[in-house]
Amino acid sequence: MSAPRTTKHITLAAHPKGPVNIEGPEANFTLKTSDLPSLKDNQVLLKTIYLSNDPAQRGWINYYPDPSRLYAPPVKVNETMRALGIGEVLESKSEKFPVGTKVAATVGWTEYAVLDAAALTPLPELPGGLGITHYLGALGGPGITAYYGLTEIAEAKSEDVVVVSGAAGATGSMAVQVAAKLIGCKRVIGIAGSEEKCRWVESLGAYKCLNYKSPTFKKDLRAATEGYVDVFFDNVGGEILDLMLARMAKFGRVALCGAISGYNASRENSMGLRNYFELISMRVKIQGFIVFDYFSRRQEALSAYRKALQEGKLLLSDMNETVVETKFEDIPKTWIKLFEGGNTGKLVTKLV
Amino acid sequence: MSAPRTTKHITLAAHPKGPVNIEGPEANFTLKTSDLPSLKDNQVLLKTIYLSNDPAQRGWINYYPDPSRLYAPPVKVNETMRALGIGEVLESKSEKFPVGTKVAATVGWTEYAVLDAAALTPLPELPGGLGITHYLGALGGPGITAYYGLTEIAEAKSEDVVVVSGAAGATGSMAVQVAAKLIGCKRVIGIAGSEEKCRWVESLGAYKCLNYKSPTFKKDLRAATEGYVDVFFDNVGGEILDLMLARMAKFGRVALCGAISGYNASRENSMGLRNYFELISMRVKIQGFIVFDYFSRRQEALSAYRKALQEGKLLLSDMNETVVETKFEDIPKTWIKLFEGGNTGKLVTKLV
Repeated sequence: MSAPRTTKHITLAAHPKGPVNIEGPEANFTLKTSDLPSLKDNQVLLKTIYLSNDPAQRGWINYYPDPSRLYAPPVKVNETMRALGIGEVLESKSEKFPVGTKVAATVGWTEYAVLDAAALTPLPELPGGLGITHYLGALGGPGITAYYGLTEIAEAKSEDVVVVSGAAGATGSMAVQVAAKLIGCKRVIGIAGSEEKCRWVESLGAYKCLNYKSPTFKKDLRAATEGYVDVFFDNVGGEILDLMLARMAKFGRVALCGAISGYNASRENSMGLRNYFELISMRVKIQGFIVFDYFSRRQEALSAYRKALQEGKLLLSDMNETVVETKFEDIPKTWIKLFEGGNTGKLVTKLV
Repeated sequence: MSAPRTTKHITLAAHPKGPVNIEGPEANFTLKTSDLPSLKDNQVLLKTIYLSNDPAQRGWINYYPDPSRLYAPPVKVNETMRALGIGEVLESKSEKFPVGTKVAATVGWTEYAVLDAAALTPLPELPGGLGITHYLGALGGPGITAYYGLTEIAEAKSEDVVVVSGAAGATGSMAVQVAAKLIGCKRVIGIAGSEEKCRWVESLGAYKCLNYKSPTFKKDLRAATEGYVDVFFDNVGGEILDLMLARMAKFGRVALCGAISGYNASRENSMGLRNYFELISMRVKIQGFIVFDYFSRRQEALSAYRKALQEGKLLLSDMNETVVETKFEDIPKTWIKLFEGGNTGKLVTKLV
């Protein structure tokens, strides 16, 4: 086939205030078709095959009076929505990436993209049985986040009791496995949003997983953390984070990975953390982190995962992902499932 | 004089809910007179001379459904109010502490106390000009808190911009001096509760001190922290802590020392921290600490202070304290000034 000259892409129509609209006159995204630039030296033309769906993307499209407070520049109105993904090289002016190579890149919500070779990440073969999409999940950003969040930020050790919120998500499900199987923590307790998710999290090695939508959740959490908690790996923020501040053991550590509960709410309306005094009396450390700071060390995490897979400590069948076949114009529809709690493990869009 | 057989003491009448009452039918304290036990081996009879007034005492008298969440056991109803202080030995069955020795101890709100020698702290002579009461302030708990909070918890270095809240208080005024004069931080900004206090804090080495009662405080704080803040040493919690979460620089550190703004409020009514998402995007560490964890290393801090005093880096005249001559029955009246912002530097009760 001859190389395409135009591409469909989806741009940010307006910064959302509160929940994102994907349809109607208030839609936050617009489908467009634009010309592709011609290839320069050390560039490739990439066809998007898979798109990564990440809660962090919600943060990238807010309006910020002071973008210096962000770890990555925000997406501006009329810019193509930013997204990680996996693509195949259709045309190449780079020796390193010949036609047919599959690579990871920040492709954006676009059918085709012209990208610099320097912006592409090669995808070496994974241990048998693991598909290439795991480079977006268990062995990609979420897996690396789980690994360094626990080992470096929370300093989790085998004697620790660990709680993971968002435990059925891409990062949380890996955090449960790292704590239970790689570090061998004393006890791992998950928090997730349905009974079904909870049973899955328990199958990953959690001693118990609590459904935060249950009417008895607060009581269940107190009971499950009776002896208090050394490490809390938090993906959700908000009320669950506040409850957990009162459940931390002396010298406990909280790794703040994300705060998905608040991503669609305005800060003014949020209730805030009220139990912070417990941080003083219990000498607790809370630390925020961003996986980008650990990308230069990603091979260390990936080696640990490969070794654990080879030794059977981690099971291929537990590296869960939810792959949703999606028409190009429905990309936002698949993405929004993240905030509806529709996935277990990594939510991947497969373009069809 | 013959040794006393009875002592006046002040006990907790009821756990306060909200502000403490020191008078009237709802008073939280009761004045009593009780017999003193006779002296056993390795005990002394101590006459209280000075009492330390500490915001932490407010925490000790709350009602706690779960006292395991405290760094020290709470004071129970009918128990003598706990307080640090300095006393003189009137009778002794300890070779280490002969009659006439002055020592520091957890004496409580009591005229006389029989204490084990093991519970007494000797008070070696201070550099010329410093009175013994500085063992309750600049060279006691508050000074040690300031030193380790900055050097260990917040890891303050010379290139850092530092903010100290409660900067005119016993701990805050020492934190300002440690940051500005011992560590030599790039810039130190204080926050205090009056213009007069602010001018004093600036005289201690702060580049600027902001009055949080000023109607322009929020704007002033943004302006003073334009390039953001590496280290925040927090004594007050609440709204100022929340504001500061949004003013921290990338990889900033917050040392949570106290939260006096909330000590007289019920947790249910507090607004909570709403800017915690900034902890993630800016990779900020927040850590609570209690000075007791550093008491075994107090000599290290005291040596640093002595050296800085000898070298003239710290000035004797800056080791401020507010000593209030107080009749025994008025001990609560002096103590309550802490929460009304009546002191600069350490608030010390001198019994008359």
